[in-house]
Amino acid sequence: MMKKLGSIEAGGTKFVLAVGSDRFELITKKRIPTTTPDETLAACIDFFKENPVDAIGLGSFGPIGIKHGTKEYGHILATPKPGWANTDIVGILTAALHVPIYFTTDVNASIYGESVSGEAENVDSAVYFTIGTGIGGGAIQAGHFIGGYSHLEMGHAPVIMHPDDHYEGGCPFHGNHCFEGVAAGPTIEARTGIRGENLDRDNQVFDFIDYYAAQMAFNAYVNLTPEKIIFGGSVIGDDDMPRVREYFDQLNNGYVQIPDNLIVHSHFADNASATVGDWALAATLI
Amino acid sequence: MMKKLGSIEAGGTKFVLAVGSDRFELITKKRIPTTTPDETLAACIDFFKENPVDAIGLGSFGPIGIKHGTKEYGHILATPKPGWANTDIVGILTAALHVPIYFTTDVNASIYGESVSGEAENVDSAVYFTIGTGIGGGAIQAGHFIGGYSHLEMGHAPVIMHPDDHYEGGCPFHGNHCFEGVAAGPTIEARTGIRGENLDRDNQVFDFIDYYAAQMAFNAYVNLTPEKIIFGGSVIGDDDMPRVREYFDQLNNGYVQIPDNLIVHSHFADNASATVGDWALAATLI
Repeated sequence: MMKKLGSIEAGGTKFVLAVGSDRFELITKKRIPTTTPDETLAACIDFFKENPVDAIGLGSFGPIGIKHGTKEYGHILATPKPGWANTDIVGILTAALHVPIYFTTDVNASIYGESVSGEAENVDSAVYFTIGTGIGGGAIQAGHFIGGYSHLEMGHAPVIMHPDDHYEGGCPFHGNHCFEGVAAGPTIEARTGIRGENLDRDNQVFDFIDYYAAQMAFNAYVNLTPEKIIFGGSVIGDDDMPRVREYFDQLNNGYVQIPDNLIVHSHFADNASATVGDWALAATLI
Repeated sequence: MMKKLGSIEAGGTKFVLAVGSDRFELITKKRIPTTTPDETLAACIDFFKENPVDAIGLGSFGPIGIKHGTKEYGHILATPKPGWANTDIVGILTAALHVPIYFTTDVNASIYGESVSGEAENVDSAVYFTIGTGIGGGAIQAGHFIGGYSHLEMGHAPVIMHPDDHYEGGCPFHGNHCFEGVAAGPTIEARTGIRGENLDRDNQVFDFIDYYAAQMAFNAYVNLTPEKIIFGGSVIGDDDMPRVREYFDQLNNGYVQIPDNLIVHSHFADNASATVGDWALAATLI
């Protein structure tokens, strides 16, 4: 009998729930708003009771506990998202649904999806960055996620400011000293008073963000030398890629050799690489 | 019969050749100066003809070609070291010695050695940085080196300058925009006119270097989340570790949780972690 796979994209704004076939074809999908843990997880449980699956891949906003055998495993940790800190998301869902759950970060789900059927399909190593409300990065090498003591926090790596950018930074921990602090979506409105989606793309702030995306790619490259670096999220798109590549080349200045077509934008619409990734991770459990 | 293992630490100043038992006990060792490829590799060949081994681990200065199946494999690539660019070091040694050679970077050899019997012995993931004439980093996770298209170039990651440090930088590619450009050994003399080994340790430049070492560790942590970060090389020592840890905590500012004793100095004297690593890598080939 065909196995059914579940995906939960647990985001700070919405949860996207999806059921797929074991060939990763969509059967049904639902979006629910992220409110309280009680309410949101009850809605998840209702959905998967109506639409039973054999296993679930759960890619979550973070920070999260992913180390098996620790008491933090399966929990959302010290998130600023009200009410969600220390939520035992895996424990609650497992107790109600009685199916195995693969728990990882949203960006790990995305890079896994890209490696199954996307931009990273034909390479052995790749990095996925999302630039949205926050900035996160996930990385894969030879089928395994990069990460030791915990999951990666690539958005909080040190950043050299663009010389014309004098923004004081939006990261509550690192100010303008990390990528998230200078290039996440909310930094656009903080600089200009206008939300990113309403701002003219010629605005200098998008030039800054392309510069930071390039620097983030360069930093990832020297630390991991992936064969592919994929950008997703709502802040930059395919149109930004030529400028990101140009800035990357300026930053590298001929030092490291890079593979052809290193830097690309995800071709999945609507973050669907995470859905495919969740399904594929769920499939590893059954 | 006991197998014998060979180690070649191929550095820009000297090559260290060593023969060990299959239990990694030193049998014999020789240092030769790095002159021309012809002369230096001939001396390597003479040594291993007099002291035959079953396999060799070769940890080399770089950049090097480590991707099997490419025409650059086994070569030293575009090094500024006169005469050495495009030297087929593995090809020349294999043709003369007829034993398998494991070819990797000097820092990969060191992190492998640390994982066999050193600071990374009881962890699954670790990073090794050397701060010397240049800065390099190697990383291991679950017994495999991190690296996709090529080997890592962690010393060339972007760096935020210390606010009191106005040095223009010594990296020919990145000026003061990478760690090597502001924290490698030669930057000490470039700033002060005095070679590092002759300079009072209270000089502010060592404070800068500890700050950069901490930032490099923080950058490695958010990109790889290793359980251990080990410093080696001639520029900083065990005495620097408290200040490096303090700067790390300032940079992190309470954001990521880290394991106890994350940052340590190598306890191997004289870069011997690379020798052990070379032997252990050689042992994987026989």
